[in-house]
Amino acid sequence: MLDPAVRDYLETHRAAHLDRLIELLRIPGIANRRDDACDRAARWLADALGTLGFRANILPTPTKPAVLAEGPAVPDAPTVLIYGHYDVQPPEPLELWHTDPFQPVVRDGWIYARGADDDKGQLFTHLMAVEAFVRSGKGLPLNVKFFIEGEEEIGSPSADAFLTEHGARLAADACVISDSAFFAAGLPSLTCALRGLAYVELTVTGPSADLHSGLLGGLVANPVNALAAMVAAMHRPDGRVAIPGFYDDVEPVGEAERAAWSELPFDEAACAQSLGLDVLAGGEKHLPALERNWARPTLDCNGIVGGYTGEGSKTIIPARASAKISMRLVARQDPQKIVAGFRRFVDENTPPGLRASVEVHAASPAVQVDPDSPAVAAARNALAEAFGRPPVLIRCGASVPATEVIQRRLGLHAVLMGFGLPEDNLHSPNERFALSQLYGGSIASAAFLQNLAAR
Amino acid sequence: MLDPAVRDYLETHRAAHLDRLIELLRIPGIANRRDDACDRAARWLADALGTLGFRANILPTPTKPAVLAEGPAVPDAPTVLIYGHYDVQPPEPLELWHTDPFQPVVRDGWIYARGADDDKGQLFTHLMAVEAFVRSGKGLPLNVKFFIEGEEEIGSPSADAFLTEHGARLAADACVISDSAFFAAGLPSLTCALRGLAYVELTVTGPSADLHSGLLGGLVANPVNALAAMVAAMHRPDGRVAIPGFYDDVEPVGEAERAAWSELPFDEAACAQSLGLDVLAGGEKHLPALERNWARPTLDCNGIVGGYTGEGSKTIIPARASAKISMRLVARQDPQKIVAGFRRFVDENTPPGLRASVEVHAASPAVQVDPDSPAVAAARNALAEAFGRPPVLIRCGASVPATEVIQRRLGLHAVLMGFGLPEDNLHSPNERFALSQLYGGSIASAAFLQNLAAR
Repeated sequence: MLDPAVRDYLETHRAAHLDRLIELLRIPGIANRRDDACDRAARWLADALGTLGFRANILPTPTKPAVLAEGPAVPDAPTVLIYGHYDVQPPEPLELWHTDPFQPVVRDGWIYARGADDDKGQLFTHLMAVEAFVRSGKGLPLNVKFFIEGEEEIGSPSADAFLTEHGARLAADACVISDSAFFAAGLPSLTCALRGLAYVELTVTGPSADLHSGLLGGLVANPVNALAAMVAAMHRPDGRVAIPGFYDDVEPVGEAERAAWSELPFDEAACAQSLGLDVLAGGEKHLPALERNWARPTLDCNGIVGGYTGEGSKTIIPARASAKISMRLVARQDPQKIVAGFRRFVDENTPPGLRASVEVHAASPAVQVDPDSPAVAAARNALAEAFGRPPVLIRCGASVPATEVIQRRLGLHAVLMGFGLPEDNLHSPNERFALSQLYGGSIASAAFLQNLAAR
Repeated sequence: MLDPAVRDYLETHRAAHLDRLIELLRIPGIANRRDDACDRAARWLADALGTLGFRANILPTPTKPAVLAEGPAVPDAPTVLIYGHYDVQPPEPLELWHTDPFQPVVRDGWIYARGADDDKGQLFTHLMAVEAFVRSGKGLPLNVKFFIEGEEEIGSPSADAFLTEHGARLAADACVISDSAFFAAGLPSLTCALRGLAYVELTVTGPSADLHSGLLGGLVANPVNALAAMVAAMHRPDGRVAIPGFYDDVEPVGEAERAAWSELPFDEAACAQSLGLDVLAGGEKHLPALERNWARPTLDCNGIVGGYTGEGSKTIIPARASAKISMRLVARQDPQKIVAGFRRFVDENTPPGLRASVEVHAASPAVQVDPDSPAVAAARNALAEAFGRPPVLIRCGASVPATEVIQRRLGLHAVLMGFGLPEDNLHSPNERFALSQLYGGSIASAAFLQNLAAR
């Protein structure tokens, strides 16, 4: 049972904590933009941890800075590393937000803002828990370290080098990451696998300038048509990815896991309807929905652009066109091998008269978490205490690239204890976080720290 | 032989004429933009014709106004209608222009500006010729009318209704249109066929907002991937358009015409190189280049957009994607039938879980000109006199939609006497017009008017 003083502190400081989270959400730190917002977010977090007695530093990376912090030493107690990220997805398209993405609004039990869930809100549950131990006079029950990065949303490109350099300072017995979600409201969940990510940009180049589509149509190969054909050729009609070798290292789902998933309360029709769709028609046909999303690699075009995209018409053969393409990977798929296969596919499918190039934005493997580690047991009990029922074990189709790096570089087990809900509009307009998940998450975090200290 | 006084007037007023053309080129009238530039261009032209003794009016259309003008009556002489357009293509991408598209620059015998050739420069040759007859004291040798429209670059959507309403005022014996080009520098040409145009915009809609590509990848059908597949399916591997019925009404090229085309000085390698390409790989494989461009219908994607197109990466399944698609048509193809076939193709190729819609921006049939009309004979002699050799008969892959409407509604033969050169960068950055073509064009126009009057 969580220490009553700590629980009481959390319950009596909800309004103050919400105000502090709103402060953090106002800072629009986006990893691939060249402004100082990420620096300000890192500074806010380092200051917040500093006032709680942490030794907090802002450390540079080639892109956006990271925050490292250690709490007061607690001799003979284990050490936990808390990972999170302060950077957020770009808020566009802005016209679909009901309120300003960086002017948080609290309405009907939700807080709306870019980053409300992913990941500032979830990360903040741990700051609340740490504060409760410190300010309630109990003191932290174990050694706590924070690693908060600012480039998760672009695939954590420098996490590997950063953890190589600062690995000694970050040494810990376990790592907790709250950047995932409950399977459904009321159903706490522990995530035991995340998909990896290979993110590439394919550019097809033709004539040196846009050309008149009448004067040259029938003479000049069209980069947009060619790009469309190349993207189309990446899938077979049955929804399988058609890039040779793409599935080589994919392992089938075990019968026990598949049976457990079929018990989960997943209503395909309701899910489709909530997304404005008639039917969930993505991925490989003939496979169950959760398996397609959790256990199978996928390929999605995240954006495409070429030629005239303004109002009305313009009759040109465009000079170039490009597509951003993400491939979500599962266990044992090597992102470098996948990228190499993609490049080979592009080379073999570039039509005469055109040139194609591939830029790699991110490449990180899938993650598997040991469901039998002591940290997972501590999290299981913490979630049961905070939310009233034991968690289910699930997977997640998304990626948290640093997870794999942390497990590999620091040689520890991670726990993916997320507090989001499926309806939080991650990466979309009107992102939000339920206040009940924020407060419940802070209780769960505190209970987790106490449980882990007791082992 | 052109009257020496008229020729002398044109030769001694080159600088003044160039200054006036520059004035016109400074007015950035673009048909699908909601500003007053088109009104100002129409006003400039009506004023210019008014000062030459024309009764000139600016008449509204549902989009941009047209200028109608009649010169002083010349009893017992035939009547010629001069058609042109003052609207220009959008200048984007601006960063590829060496100078401002609407601040004309004269350099090395060329004038650079959007519209320098298409069509302000070419249209202006006729204003120069008319001025020469009027100001040299000779007077116009025949009845001259102008119809100058402001929506040619968006497919002349209201030309048909406009000519129905104002047909009586525009009655004439022949029409001359200068909105085409020489086959090559030094090789004057008369165009005897233009392709038609069906321009559509295809939009594929999926979820009601952009979604997280990890959390939903494998569940949700992706509108960008689907659009790419639909666009790709519009061509067969051999370059033929794969939309059922697309070629139903296309007639083969006759042996005599094909033989004449093979005599033309067309250097494929040089053409490819001038466009920054290795090879001319557009259109149907196994057909000669000029035949593909002049006598075969084609389908080109003029623009495509969907999802995240900014810097770096964003991991979303986009809510929607759209493509602008132009189909160039040849004689006997019915644009309405082609559009209907396109819609049917889209309906049959929209995958489950997504919706598709088609908006029609333009639909006009191909044009054939009678090469044996008296007006063509007058133009043939005029070009020979102005440029030192008789013209070749060619076709053109582009469209001038009003040509077909003028021939049909006014019941007359058109003459396509263009003064552009293939290297004029039509619809592209750094559009230009050779001053030698501007001056030669004005001589040709004057000689044409005189020749036609003499018949």
